[in-house]
Amino acid sequence: MARYQRLAELLAERIEQGLYRYGEKLPSVRSLSQEHGVSISTVQQAYQTLETRQLITPQPRSGYFVAPRKVQPPVPPMSRPVQRPVEITQWDQVIDMLKGHKDKEIIPFSSGAPDIQQPSLQPLWRELKRLVQHNLDEILGYDALTGRVELREQLARLMLDGGSVVSAEDIIITSGSQSGLSLALLAVCRPGDIIAIESPTYYGTMQLLRSLGFKVIEIPTDPETGMSVEALELALAQWPIKGIITVPNCNNPLGFIMPDARKRALLALAQSHDIVIFEDDVYGELATDYPRPRTIHSWDIDGRVMLCSSFTKTVAPGLRVGWIVPGRYHDRFLQMKYAMVGSNVPVTQLAAASFIKDGHYHRHIRRMRQIYQRNMEIYTCWVREYFPEGICITRPKGGFMLWVELPEQVDMVCVAQQLCRLKIQVAPGSLFSASGKYRNCVRINCALPPNEKHQAVMEKLGNAVKVAME
Amino acid sequence: MARYQRLAELLAERIEQGLYRYGEKLPSVRSLSQEHGVSISTVQQAYQTLETRQLITPQPRSGYFVAPRKVQPPVPPMSRPVQRPVEITQWDQVIDMLKGHKDKEIIPFSSGAPDIQQPSLQPLWRELKRLVQHNLDEILGYDALTGRVELREQLARLMLDGGSVVSAEDIIITSGSQSGLSLALLAVCRPGDIIAIESPTYYGTMQLLRSLGFKVIEIPTDPETGMSVEALELALAQWPIKGIITVPNCNNPLGFIMPDARKRALLALAQSHDIVIFEDDVYGELATDYPRPRTIHSWDIDGRVMLCSSFTKTVAPGLRVGWIVPGRYHDRFLQMKYAMVGSNVPVTQLAAASFIKDGHYHRHIRRMRQIYQRNMEIYTCWVREYFPEGICITRPKGGFMLWVELPEQVDMVCVAQQLCRLKIQVAPGSLFSASGKYRNCVRINCALPPNEKHQAVMEKLGNAVKVAME
Repeated sequence: MARYQRLAELLAERIEQGLYRYGEKLPSVRSLSQEHGVSISTVQQAYQTLETRQLITPQPRSGYFVAPRKVQPPVPPMSRPVQRPVEITQWDQVIDMLKGHKDKEIIPFSSGAPDIQQPSLQPLWRELKRLVQHNLDEILGYDALTGRVELREQLARLMLDGGSVVSAEDIIITSGSQSGLSLALLAVCRPGDIIAIESPTYYGTMQLLRSLGFKVIEIPTDPETGMSVEALELALAQWPIKGIITVPNCNNPLGFIMPDARKRALLALAQSHDIVIFEDDVYGELATDYPRPRTIHSWDIDGRVMLCSSFTKTVAPGLRVGWIVPGRYHDRFLQMKYAMVGSNVPVTQLAAASFIKDGHYHRHIRRMRQIYQRNMEIYTCWVREYFPEGICITRPKGGFMLWVELPEQVDMVCVAQQLCRLKIQVAPGSLFSASGKYRNCVRINCALPPNEKHQAVMEKLGNAVKVAME
Repeated sequence: MARYQRLAELLAERIEQGLYRYGEKLPSVRSLSQEHGVSISTVQQAYQTLETRQLITPQPRSGYFVAPRKVQPPVPPMSRPVQRPVEITQWDQVIDMLKGHKDKEIIPFSSGAPDIQQPSLQPLWRELKRLVQHNLDEILGYDALTGRVELREQLARLMLDGGSVVSAEDIIITSGSQSGLSLALLAVCRPGDIIAIESPTYYGTMQLLRSLGFKVIEIPTDPETGMSVEALELALAQWPIKGIITVPNCNNPLGFIMPDARKRALLALAQSHDIVIFEDDVYGELATDYPRPRTIHSWDIDGRVMLCSSFTKTVAPGLRVGWIVPGRYHDRFLQMKYAMVGSNVPVTQLAAASFIKDGHYHRHIRRMRQIYQRNMEIYTCWVREYFPEGICITRPKGGFMLWVELPEQVDMVCVAQQLCRLKIQVAPGSLFSASGKYRNCVRINCALPPNEKHQAVMEKLGNAVKVAME
């Protein structure tokens, strides 16, 4: 945590504890700088952070004051999906939504795209240029089916941060995490099998399961601690579930990080029922707290966890570089990859490998963690400001997604259609459910920089929701 | 056809007709130049071509003489696979072979890789550099699910050469032709369905069908005219076949171009049985004769032909740029693509688009057609020289693959294992059959430049075959 962040936390605590009260003037920048032995600019940054969080307000020429206390909306309750396997019913909406993303005039609050405008990406750029200039043969030829060894070596090192000890030989490169998950499902399961998933679940995963003809059972999921292991256990006792798909770290769309004890309990259940866990770690590196959370895979002793990830959210989607550690299913996965897609683009793999090796990746991730955290705080304030009373909102521990639950009577599918006419796209919650639940929820992509344009959009969104309540 | 090629053809014809006889001295370069009104160097090139084809031999200081007439081995007969649906049995060999390809010491006669060392690829290179320098945002972001419109527009123009009239909207970009075919199969058929294929069929297609749980029926296929429409008709009458996979132009591995009448008959059969044709055109642009042959798709009136292709064989595998025209299955294909893989790498698509638009693609293809044709002639001579009597060999009409049928008793699977120890990899024919037929056949990749090293390898291969006959 940076110095200014520590100071901000300290001050926030004092306000929370009532040491500084509503309306009271806060110490001057200079005196705080002397008190804590930090620079003027550190104090200024800390105050700006608190202002962003709407804890304090500036008064021109007289300093900062404690802001009127706003009640933070509660976290949504644990989800309660139907406890039996269902066919997935959502389909066309998603494709329609994706078509819209390429229309440059549309503001894609519904998308899962990260922020790719940061200067910390420039070294990646330089590396791509260098490769194109000097490594002709390697870039034009067929890549190895497993992917570039230079990249796999770097990934093996990266994965230590999540507690996973693997070697380059254990990793297979894929073109993104979705491709890894789809091949893993094809390699290990069969159409008609029942897969347990979190509820809500990312719509891309839902579409994948649907298109391959799987049935799903949606497991109750807590927005702060993840999939209910108790509910999963009951489901496992009742149905012939073949696998579990989970995003335990910086979950999409809920933002939780599953506590370690719960991760281990989930793994123990998978072991006792001898089923596979598909762990999607695509947002795991974007956890607000450092060091990053452990993967379920890190406790896996018999290779039953297939860990998928990619650079799509952490670096850039256009690289199409993902990877999987298929564990005991390594050969089956490789055969499926050969049959279905073959090898991947070499040039973006090589660029990513150098980006990590030269230390640029870690610098970039550090930056993005802070940016997304700040973005989510600002978006949360806007939701509080523009949305009606009676909502719930998640407290993401990383990633860049907010999940807002609106009063029961709000139909976000209708609201989304209205907003579409204003060239604003939002993802209604029903996309994240196999059975069309969560129509009164919405996911907001906070990677879009919190500028005036996006503030205005949030205001329109809030207004549309208010109208829908009437 | 270049001037020297026309002259070479004329002279070859005269030798064939006996106008110049074995041992006879051919006209001097100067006199031939005067007779035909062409330059000295044109005549020299023509003579070199004939020398390569072993029709003439040079005698130092005295000119060229008609070479002893070697009998061209016959074309292999039509294949006779079992006429019932079978499960595919070949598997591990292919993955093992692919692993070997990345060992730099191994000579990969078994691979399907094209020649990517030609200077006509340099403009592609320049374009990649330019893109990386100037189009940051477009390259890092998510691509549209259908792929870059700049590329699709160029592809629509290209496809006119094969007689297919489509617009950019009809085309979807894939990461290679294999990925297109796999998604097409998933979108249109179901595991357990029976698919009709040529016999032999490219091993990648075979693995794909196997890994998705399809049954196949191998249709007798003529090495000069392609899949037997009569045999297909009988099979269709007897079995509930759901689709046909065919490579009608510059077939891999047989090199035939299906005559137009036969293509139309195949399409008519598909229409009358209301089934889908998966047409793989990945080698179609590499037909020796210009203009290139028509696609089956070009006669399709009800969108039942799903035409897949890619730049893997024509430009460079490392681009991972392929495409499909899914016809009436457009939306189903797009949904399957979204669910299984998502979007593709933008930078290689944009580079390919400019490569075509600026005319470099056509120049490159013209060059590669000539190079591959010459290569195949040289490799054919080497086979004739180093292999035993009693073999059959294909007369490819394009692409860069030769298929050699050896006497019955030769087991190429064993020979391939022996050669493996010498760091030489060849593809035994059994890889191209669902039921392990063609153990006495071998496919040779003539994209490997016909230099002394590769000549020596061909000699070793020939010797190994001779030993296997004893």
